[in-house]
Amino acid sequence: MPEVRKDPITGSWVVSAPERAQRPQPTKIHATASHSKRCPFCAGHEADTPPEIFSLRHTTTEADQPGWSVRVVPNRYPALVAARSHRRGSNSFYESDAAFGAHEVIIETPKHIENISKLNDEQFTRVVRAYRQRMRALSENPTWRYLLLFKNQGIAAGATLGHVHSQLLALSIIPPETAREIAGARKFFERHRSCGYCAMMKREAREKHRLITSDAHYAVFCPYAARVPFETWIVPRRHQSLFANGAEGSENHLARVLRETLRRLDRALKHAPFNLIIRSSPPALDENPYYHWHIEILPRLAQIGGFEWGTGCYINVVTPEDAARQLRKIAL
Amino acid sequence: MPEVRKDPITGSWVVSAPERAQRPQPTKIHATASHSKRCPFCAGHEADTPPEIFSLRHTTTEADQPGWSVRVVPNRYPALVAARSHRRGSNSFYESDAAFGAHEVIIETPKHIENISKLNDEQFTRVVRAYRQRMRALSENPTWRYLLLFKNQGIAAGATLGHVHSQLLALSIIPPETAREIAGARKFFERHRSCGYCAMMKREAREKHRLITSDAHYAVFCPYAARVPFETWIVPRRHQSLFANGAEGSENHLARVLRETLRRLDRALKHAPFNLIIRSSPPALDENPYYHWHIEILPRLAQIGGFEWGTGCYINVVTPEDAARQLRKIAL
Repeated sequence: MPEVRKDPITGSWVVSAPERAQRPQPTKIHATASHSKRCPFCAGHEADTPPEIFSLRHTTTEADQPGWSVRVVPNRYPALVAARSHRRGSNSFYESDAAFGAHEVIIETPKHIENISKLNDEQFTRVVRAYRQRMRALSENPTWRYLLLFKNQGIAAGATLGHVHSQLLALSIIPPETAREIAGARKFFERHRSCGYCAMMKREAREKHRLITSDAHYAVFCPYAARVPFETWIVPRRHQSLFANGAEGSENHLARVLRETLRRLDRALKHAPFNLIIRSSPPALDENPYYHWHIEILPRLAQIGGFEWGTGCYINVVTPEDAARQLRKIAL
Repeated sequence: MPEVRKDPITGSWVVSAPERAQRPQPTKIHATASHSKRCPFCAGHEADTPPEIFSLRHTTTEADQPGWSVRVVPNRYPALVAARSHRRGSNSFYESDAAFGAHEVIIETPKHIENISKLNDEQFTRVVRAYRQRMRALSENPTWRYLLLFKNQGIAAGATLGHVHSQLLALSIIPPETAREIAGARKFFERHRSCGYCAMMKREAREKHRLITSDAHYAVFCPYAARVPFETWIVPRRHQSLFANGAEGSENHLARVLRETLRRLDRALKHAPFNLIIRSSPPALDENPYYHWHIEILPRLAQIGGFEWGTGCYINVVTPEDAARQLRKIAL
């Protein structure tokens, strides 16, 4: 069973989940995403995954059968598990606890597609709807103090299965780095009496050096302190703390801008691997004036090296101004 | 010129150094370490690097000529530069400053070797001596508040040149994550009236589950909260805060244990890429009772994904107990 281990000096924590390495030999860890083997995420292979939690499907079809367009299942190799064992590390020096939480997989298409930018607008809308519905469902459980929805596309971005999917984690704690981000947002609000993300988004939409696109609902830009080349943020124009609170029926707006942004990046960067993260307020903070949900996309062109490990800071060799200029020029 | 940019909300900072991408096209960033081209770090190619800062060489030979065993030069594409321009970002919302510091490259052998574990004990001793001497020299400049010595071996670990080398950065600030580590060490000391690293090292040497080797001078173990598979620490038995303060003439002790550890990892993990970081106290804190220098080695078997980006925490699929058991078994 996975456990959370705390560093006795820094207090930072690690999920120790040997179950996630099907065989914990390093040669296995080297293994690339298996393309040759039967894909458990394809329609018709529903029995290869645990039973579904949720799906968008034809009304005439049954759960765990074909007929779905988006399907959500528990992760077969979860980093977090729902059965809370109350054993705490008995060792007085080192602290550990069960890695308590939920770990879901959102399968984003029934067909075997490995590049999300190939999905059409309708399918993107369904994907966004599934994101919202699962986030909303998990938000209702007060045990979950933080929800993290992310996508790893490409082996270098941490994907182990090629078929496009995202992961949704529900955590019983707020991770230290997330807590710092929220504290920063709160401090910004206290100092300026306005939301920092609203201020940033308005400035980017006005100054345009780092703007990629914008419409009535979203601004898309490369952030000023971009950590990696071509880091791109999608920020809603309307202040809203919780991603899950998006109005029913407005999914198509986000779907359109998300699809367009991912297609731009895919073309500009020649199908480079990337991570995508939806950053939303902890559910218990509800709608608040300082936190503003947004999407961060981190292309994985550069490697993380000793500087990043040693300092927690990044060296970025492409300015966000240059990245935005290149991304604006992409014809779609 | 590289600049430091601060995120207006989280306060975290990034070094924006477009000069480090010789050509800032993403295709270039994809490029692998160039094996085919003339290696600027080989003996005989001294003119391909900036003039040397330091070298260990035959007394009859001249600077920037062959005859050296270890050679230290300024990084040709520095992330940090010594010329401080006092311009601060004029923009009231975003903060930036010149990326002020030193960025040296320690070339660890005159021969073209791409795997440091192939060097012999004598050469490792020279390498350790060069590390100490450069750290000591930079410590004398009170402008440098933190020194970071690290090695990236292998493309996946961030190396761009194969010829074995390390990098030494001198920073005019203490990076936020480093500051938190030092604050954690201080807090541990205040609570327990003993150094946390001493306590950890003694416990690991006694309990042996995570111990790889130990001798009179060093304990080598996989830390309890290992972030990545096979993470390995080398911790000196004697409490010492500053790596630079190692006694003259004791370099061979560290050289031996470092070489043995790197050879073990290289064999167990089939030449996997890795990062190595020397963590030392900020020079201004001098020798203090709470910080204990040590070496962290992070093999790069697993990819960093959305969970790590989103939380700052790690999921590790190999327990340090299992990693240590495998590493102990390696015959050298």
